Amino acid sequence: MGKEITSREQDYSQWYNDLVIKGQLADYSAVRGCMVIKPYGFALWENMRDVLDKKFKDTGHQNAYFPLFVPKSLFEAEEKNAEGFAKECAVVTHYRLKADVNNKGKLVVDPEAKLEEELVVRPTSEAIIWNTYKGWIQSYRDLPILVNQWANVVRWEMRTRLFLRTAEFLWQEGHTAHATKEEAITETKLMLDVYADFVENWMALPVVKGVKSPNERFAGAEDTYCIEALMQDGKALQAGTSHFLGQNFAKAFDVKFSDKENKLDYVWATSWGVSTRLIGALVMAHSDDDGLVLPPRIAPVQVVIVPIYKGDEQKAQIDEKVTEIVKNLKAMGISVKYDDNDNARPGWKFAEYELKGVPVRIAIGARDLANNVVEIARRDTKEKASVNMDGIEDYIQTLLHDIQSAMYNKALKFREERITRTDNWDEFVQLLDTKGGFISAHWDGTAETEDKIKELSKATIRCIPLDNVQEEGKCILTGKPSSQRVLFARAY
Amino acid sequence: MGKEITSREQDYSQWYNDLVIKGQLADYSAVRGCMVIKPYGFALWENMRDVLDKKFKDTGHQNAYFPLFVPKSLFEAEEKNAEGFAKECAVVTHYRLKADVNNKGKLVVDPEAKLEEELVVRPTSEAIIWNTYKGWIQSYRDLPILVNQWANVVRWEMRTRLFLRTAEFLWQEGHTAHATKEEAITETKLMLDVYADFVENWMALPVVKGVKSPNERFAGAEDTYCIEALMQDGKALQAGTSHFLGQNFAKAFDVKFSDKENKLDYVWATSWGVSTRLIGALVMAHSDDDGLVLPPRIAPVQVVIVPIYKGDEQKAQIDEKVTEIVKNLKAMGISVKYDDNDNARPGWKFAEYELKGVPVRIAIGARDLANNVVEIARRDTKEKASVNMDGIEDYIQTLLHDIQSAMYNKALKFREERITRTDNWDEFVQLLDTKGGFISAHWDGTAETEDKIKELSKATIRCIPLDNVQEEGKCILTGKPSSQRVLFARAY
Repeated sequence: MGKEITSREQDYSQWYNDLVIKGQLADYSAVRGCMVIKPYGFALWENMRDVLDKKFKDTGHQNAYFPLFVPKSLFEAEEKNAEGFAKECAVVTHYRLKADVNNKGKLVVDPEAKLEEELVVRPTSEAIIWNTYKGWIQSYRDLPILVNQWANVVRWEMRTRLFLRTAEFLWQEGHTAHATKEEAITETKLMLDVYADFVENWMALPVVKGVKSPNERFAGAEDTYCIEALMQDGKALQAGTSHFLGQNFAKAFDVKFSDKENKLDYVWATSWGVSTRLIGALVMAHSDDDGLVLPPRIAPVQVVIVPIYKGDEQKAQIDEKVTEIVKNLKAMGISVKYDDNDNARPGWKFAEYELKGVPVRIAIGARDLANNVVEIARRDTKEKASVNMDGIEDYIQTLLHDIQSAMYNKALKFREERITRTDNWDEFVQLLDTKGGFISAHWDGTAETEDKIKELSKATIRCIPLDNVQEEGKCILTGKPSSQRVLFARAY
Repeated sequence: MGKEITSREQDYSQWYNDLVIKGQLADYSAVRGCMVIKPYGFALWENMRDVLDKKFKDTGHQNAYFPLFVPKSLFEAEEKNAEGFAKECAVVTHYRLKADVNNKGKLVVDPEAKLEEELVVRPTSEAIIWNTYKGWIQSYRDLPILVNQWANVVRWEMRTRLFLRTAEFLWQEGHTAHATKEEAITETKLMLDVYADFVENWMALPVVKGVKSPNERFAGAEDTYCIEALMQDGKALQAGTSHFLGQNFAKAFDVKFSDKENKLDYVWATSWGVSTRLIGALVMAHSDDDGLVLPPRIAPVQVVIVPIYKGDEQKAQIDEKVTEIVKNLKAMGISVKYDDNDNARPGWKFAEYELKGVPVRIAIGARDLANNVVEIARRDTKEKASVNMDGIEDYIQTLLHDIQSAMYNKALKFREERITRTDNWDEFVQLLDTKGGFISAHWDGTAETEDKIKELSKATIRCIPLDNVQEEGKCILTGKPSSQRVLFARAY
C-alpha cells in the first residue's frame, strides 16, 4: 500500500514527515519552503480556527483585514521589530513581467516597472496595523481597539519543516490598542489564557504558561508571554505567544490619544498569535507508529463506519441500520463518515483511518447485525469492544469524551514525568541528552549566560513559568545567585 | 457630525466612496491600491463567505491552501494565462533587507539575497495548483478533485477603487479536475448556479447568467461563464465567473490520468471565483443618499434597538423589556444589537445605523412601554410603524423576510426597466449615455467589431445570456448577419 511509516524509534523526524505526507495533511510544493495544505489538513485547521475565532469573539474581538504588503519605510519604523524580521523577509521590487525578445519571449522582470519603494511581504503586521490605527484613534473613546486578523505571513526561514517552520504559514494575529498599561497587560494575559484553554481542552495538549526571557522576546515587545508544550521526543514547542508591546509601536507610528482629562499620551498595545504550526504540535504530541491520533474535539471526522458484507442483500441490511445511526449521530453534532466505497476492502480501510487518526471506528457485519452489536475500535488505545446497538449513539458520545480526556491525561503524564529539577550542570546536559523534557534550573538572569547555555547544551529558556516559586539558588552554569528556577529545553 | 454623504445625483462615484469610508466598511491604506477592510466590512464578508462556503461544501467541495508565490517558470507555463497576468503582477526578487551603513543604517534590499528564480505573488492560482495536481492524479480513481481555496490575491491594477478594483483582494477560487469534458462543463455551470443563487437570494441582487465573448474570457479558459448585475448608475458589474478550462492547464503542466480502459488522457479543468468585489456591488446596488442599505440575510447586524429615556428608572424599565426581546430574537437566529451607550443621543444613533444600513431599527421609550408598543423603522423604505409588543419577535422575523424580498424586487424592477433592445446604432449610443443598463443588440460575432464598439461607445459585451433566443438580425455596428442578440453595457 506504500503507506509504511517510519517508526519513532527509527527516525523521529522521518516519522513526523511520513505522518504529515501519508496522513494527507500537507504536501511539499514547488516553492522553496512553502507547503500545500491538503483538504484533510485544512479541515483540521478549519476546526481549530472556528473554535479560536469563537473564543476571540466571545472575548470582544472583531476580525478585520490589513494589506499583505508593508512599505519599507513603515517596516523599519519600529527599530527592533525591523531588525528582527529584516533578515528573513520576502521583498517585492517590481510590478510587472515582460517577454524577453532575446530569449524566445520568456518572461523577465520589467526593469521599467521597478517600485519606487520596496514592499515587504508581511512577516507580522504590527507596522501596517499601527500605521492604520493612527487614523482610527484620537481620544479614549476610540479605545480599546480589539481586532484580530486571519492571514498568511511570510518569513524566509532557511531550514523549513512541514507545519513547524515554513516560509509561508497561516495564522491569526490579534492587535489591540488600550488607554492604560494595566489594561494592555490584562489583555495580554487574557489571550494567553484563551490559547492555553484551546490547546489543553481542544488539542488535548498540556502547556506551561510563562513569560520569555529577554533573549527570546518577540522583536519589539516589552514582554512575551507564551505557552510551551512537550513533544514525544522530549523537545519543547512554543504553541502560542501573546505580547505586551508597551508603547513601542505607538511611539514608532506616533499614535496618541487624549484621555478624559484631555491629556495626550501614547497608546498601549498587545499582539498575539497562533499558527498552522499548532498542527505540527498536534501530530508530534499524540500520534503513534501506525499514524495520526487526533483528539475528537478537533478531528475532521470523529467516527468512521465500515461495513463488512458479502453481496447486495447483506449490504442493503447494513445500509439501513447505518443510515439510522449516522442520522442520530449527526443530530448530536458528531461528525461521522460512512465509508461504503466498494473499491477498497475493510482491512485497507481500517489501516487508512488508523493512519488518518479518526478517533472512533465502527465495523458492522452481517453477523453483528444478527446479534444486534457493532465492533467499536478507539484509535488512541486501539482497544476494541463489541457493543450493543441499543443506545449506541450515547455510547459513542461518551467514548469521544473519554478519548479526549485520555489523550490529555496521557500527554500530561508524559510531560509531568519530564519536568526535572537539577542543580548540577553535568546532570543538566545528561538529562537533555537522554530523557529530554523541561529542566527546571536556576539561572543568573543574564543574556550572556543564556547564550552560553544554549551554545553548550542546545537548550534555551522556554519560559519563566507564571506564578513561579521564588527560591534562592545558584545559576546552573555560573553559580551566581538566582532567585528562581526557569524551564530549559531543547525546542522546535 | 462629519458624516455627510455626497448624493448619487451630485457625484455617484464620490457617493460610493463616502458610503464605504463613512459606513466603516473599509479604509485606504499606506500601500498603493490596497485597502484595509474594517471590522464592519469584514463582518459582512464573513457572512458572505460562510454562506458560500456552506454551498461549496454542500456541492461536494473541500477547502485547501496553496502557496502565495508562483515561481516564474510555473507562472509562464500556460501561455495565455501568463500573458493575461504578467502585465500586472507583484514580483518578489529578494529575501532579505540589510542595514545600509552609508545611510544611517536605513534598510535596503540585500543584493546578496537575490532569488535565483523570481516569485510572482499569485494573481490567481491555476499554475501553482495544476503543478500540484500533477502529483495527485494518476488514474480516474483520483478524479474528480473538487477543491476550493479562500485566499488573498494581487493584481497590480493602475486605477483602483475600494472593493471594486484593488491591488490586493480577498476571494475564493475553486479548482476542479475531471475525467471528462462533459463533467467539467457540468461543474462549471453548477458553480455559476451556486453564485447566481447566492447573489440573488442572499445579496438580493438579480443577475443575468451568460457566457463571455472570446475577448472577455479569462486568460487560459475555453469558456468563461459569468453573472452580471446592474448598478444604480446604469453600469454593469461582473459579480462572479466560472471557467471551463478545457485541457489547457493539464497540457501546460502535463497532468494525465489513465481511464478505466487504462488509456492515458489529459485531465479536464474548471476554476471559479468571487471576491470582495461583491461588497462593492452590494453597496452600489442597494444603498441610498443616507447610507448603506444591507439585505437582512447578510447584514452583520439585522436589528438594532435604541432606548429613549430620561433617568435611571426609565432606563431600567426599558432594559428589562429589551433584554427579553433580545433573548427571544437571538434564539430565533436573528442578529440584534442593543445600543444603550449613553454617550450618544438617540438622533445620532438613528443616523449612524441608517448610514450603516442596519435593516430594522427599533426605538423604545417610556411612553411606548406604557402603551406596550415599540416604533419599528425599516431601512430600505424608511417606513415607520408603531407595533404591539406582543408577538414582536414574529413581526420582526416576517419583516426581515419582507425587506429581503422588497430589496430584490426593487433591484429586479430597476434592472428589467434597463434591458433595452435596439437595432439602431445611434439609439444604442444614446441609450448608453442616458438610461444606461443592458442593451440587447445584434453583433456579428467578431472580435474586431467588439473592439470597435467598445472604442466608439465604451460598452462591452457583458455576456451572451444562457438559453439565448436565436433570431436572425444584423450587427448593430457593421450590419453583417447575426444569429442572436447579446447584452452590451458600460461596466465596472
